[in-house]
Amino acid sequence: MATVGKVIKCQAAVAWEPNAPMVIEEIEVAPPQANEIRIKVIATGVCHTDLYHLFEGKNKKGFPAVLGHEGAGVVESVGPGVTEFKPGDKVIPLFLSQCRECRFCKCPKTNLCDQSWSSDRYAQMSDTTTRFSCRGQPILQFMGTSTFSEYTVLNQVAVVKIHDDAPLERVCLLGCGISTGYGAAINTAKVEPGSVCAVFGLGAVGLAAVMGCKNAGASRIIAVDINEQKFEKAKIFGATDFVNPKSHKKPISEVLAEMTNGGVDFSMECVGNGAVMRSALESCVKGWGVSVLVGWTDVQDFSARPIQLISGKTWKGSLFGGFKSKDSVPKLVLDYMAGRIMLDEFVTHTMSLDQVNDAVQLMKTGGCIRTIINPSK
Amino acid sequence: MATVGKVIKCQAAVAWEPNAPMVIEEIEVAPPQANEIRIKVIATGVCHTDLYHLFEGKNKKGFPAVLGHEGAGVVESVGPGVTEFKPGDKVIPLFLSQCRECRFCKCPKTNLCDQSWSSDRYAQMSDTTTRFSCRGQPILQFMGTSTFSEYTVLNQVAVVKIHDDAPLERVCLLGCGISTGYGAAINTAKVEPGSVCAVFGLGAVGLAAVMGCKNAGASRIIAVDINEQKFEKAKIFGATDFVNPKSHKKPISEVLAEMTNGGVDFSMECVGNGAVMRSALESCVKGWGVSVLVGWTDVQDFSARPIQLISGKTWKGSLFGGFKSKDSVPKLVLDYMAGRIMLDEFVTHTMSLDQVNDAVQLMKTGGCIRTIINPSK
Repeated sequence: MATVGKVIKCQAAVAWEPNAPMVIEEIEVAPPQANEIRIKVIATGVCHTDLYHLFEGKNKKGFPAVLGHEGAGVVESVGPGVTEFKPGDKVIPLFLSQCRECRFCKCPKTNLCDQSWSSDRYAQMSDTTTRFSCRGQPILQFMGTSTFSEYTVLNQVAVVKIHDDAPLERVCLLGCGISTGYGAAINTAKVEPGSVCAVFGLGAVGLAAVMGCKNAGASRIIAVDINEQKFEKAKIFGATDFVNPKSHKKPISEVLAEMTNGGVDFSMECVGNGAVMRSALESCVKGWGVSVLVGWTDVQDFSARPIQLISGKTWKGSLFGGFKSKDSVPKLVLDYMAGRIMLDEFVTHTMSLDQVNDAVQLMKTGGCIRTIINPSK
Repeated sequence: MATVGKVIKCQAAVAWEPNAPMVIEEIEVAPPQANEIRIKVIATGVCHTDLYHLFEGKNKKGFPAVLGHEGAGVVESVGPGVTEFKPGDKVIPLFLSQCRECRFCKCPKTNLCDQSWSSDRYAQMSDTTTRFSCRGQPILQFMGTSTFSEYTVLNQVAVVKIHDDAPLERVCLLGCGISTGYGAAINTAKVEPGSVCAVFGLGAVGLAAVMGCKNAGASRIIAVDINEQKFEKAKIFGATDFVNPKSHKKPISEVLAEMTNGGVDFSMECVGNGAVMRSALESCVKGWGVSVLVGWTDVQDFSARPIQLISGKTWKGSLFGGFKSKDSVPKLVLDYMAGRIMLDEFVTHTMSLDQVNDAVQLMKTGGCIRTIINPSK
């Protein structure tokens, strides 16, 4: 292609500082270096973790940056040493990499690749080695992906090739939210057939967790949200019971205990709020209840009384639903194409890149499940 | 026997109120009712949970009571319907019962019998239906056991027959502390061969956890305590490394991370302190680290940053080391008699019942590992 080896000028949404709207800018995207690939981003979801970085995490060291980490695209060019990808390949960027060489990748118990941005840089969340610049200034790459851009550059350990026929405007959602919620139920909680589950928070991650519980064979799935408008959607994904904590004077854990003879077998917190994390644990049955932190936050502690664990409950968490990313995402794409998992039902809005702040606003107000942005249109 | 069917007058240590010394009193012990047995207590350990109730939990509804829950004795008489026990049997009282009929007993995942005092009465910890009285006033039975008495009455679901040759002054320790720490490593953490472990707090429970880690095949066992005098004892049970948090300026989790290439595989909190619980979790390696709450407290929250779990760690807890009590205690007695587990090494002092406050004082100041009291001497 004419762009190979050259700097590409393209549009991107630049987050110059925390707590401010992103600005659509022309940025310069350098060619891929050794072991890197440059891709054209065709579609990207807007995930709450983008909002977290912008409005909640607010670590100034992570700015200016291009956000976005739930994308899908096509390879434009590859750097030296890259043999796994060629121009034209359909790919999904992986905010959680899989290098296949570190002790974490070699261990079947975890997906936390040591090469990932997430390794020890939670507070910053942005790569300081970046291929982006704007007005002569380096622009950081959020979570190593930065999909709110027409073009982005990824390390080959943080991208995976998917089926040639995969519809990118749908499978982009497997880059974060849907895999995260679905895997939290399947891999982390290990929901068992016949079990009773509760999912706290019915955004895309929570709805995907509901879907995971259903596919795992749960007999009851209690959907919990303060926004009752989401209950209808939750039903589509498999929820059987619906609880609005604001409709009860007693703690939600007591409401659920009464509904379930002492508490649920599995609960998943898909909000990213310390108080909800506590409620989700307290809602589990003593003896064997498992509660999983799925929603991302790191601005506050979570806490509980020791008896909650001493009475035999387990508190877990997972990143990217416990999926080893390179191994799993192509399979999840096939699962979608074969009708084994839903993706279409998550998409409520489609927008162009210059509407990205509208998409953020929609998510903040709970007016959408997932908005898909097409940076290259 | 001459006492069958009659009220027995005997000595007991009565805790009349929180935060005050126990008083040796003559109490009246009623005959066992249906499904109950009355036993003569031959030996009992003094456990930190006794102190917790007296000095930390301090719920006035749990007083006056006879404390003690780590005992061994001989059956004096049995009530109607009891066929499993006969006078003269050697037994161990079980603060955590096993009725074999509730859904918890029937589930292999848990030992939290629904008939236990612990079911939903954590704050109170004392049975309101009691066979004890003193000066015309009912005296509550702490944890359903009350072994700081020459005689006590137990429900048959909360006592187990052990081998006739078992030395009661040793196997009494299997009634709580040793089973709790040992099982926390074996059953709850499920320590794996070759793994790296850290045990926080080197009282009897912590030392038993060290023994559990060793028997499970751990390659390194890091003993953590602010009292370095306990390190020598920890070595006997299998500890390989010794850390005094007060000797380091940096957080103990960082010290352990440096010693272990990123953190330990398993950590056990055997203190019962919220800050230590946090340190124990933070000391685990990301991806697969498991931290277990073993020490009993319920007066304060435990807490951590969400990333501690989202990065793949698991927080668990267990009561009585996850052992189903009736099934396991007789086997643990045989394990001791066959030399597979140590008990003698925990015993640092032996006292008579009227020295019970001295034993409590010794434990408060860290001057003992376990004191054995002989209520019937």
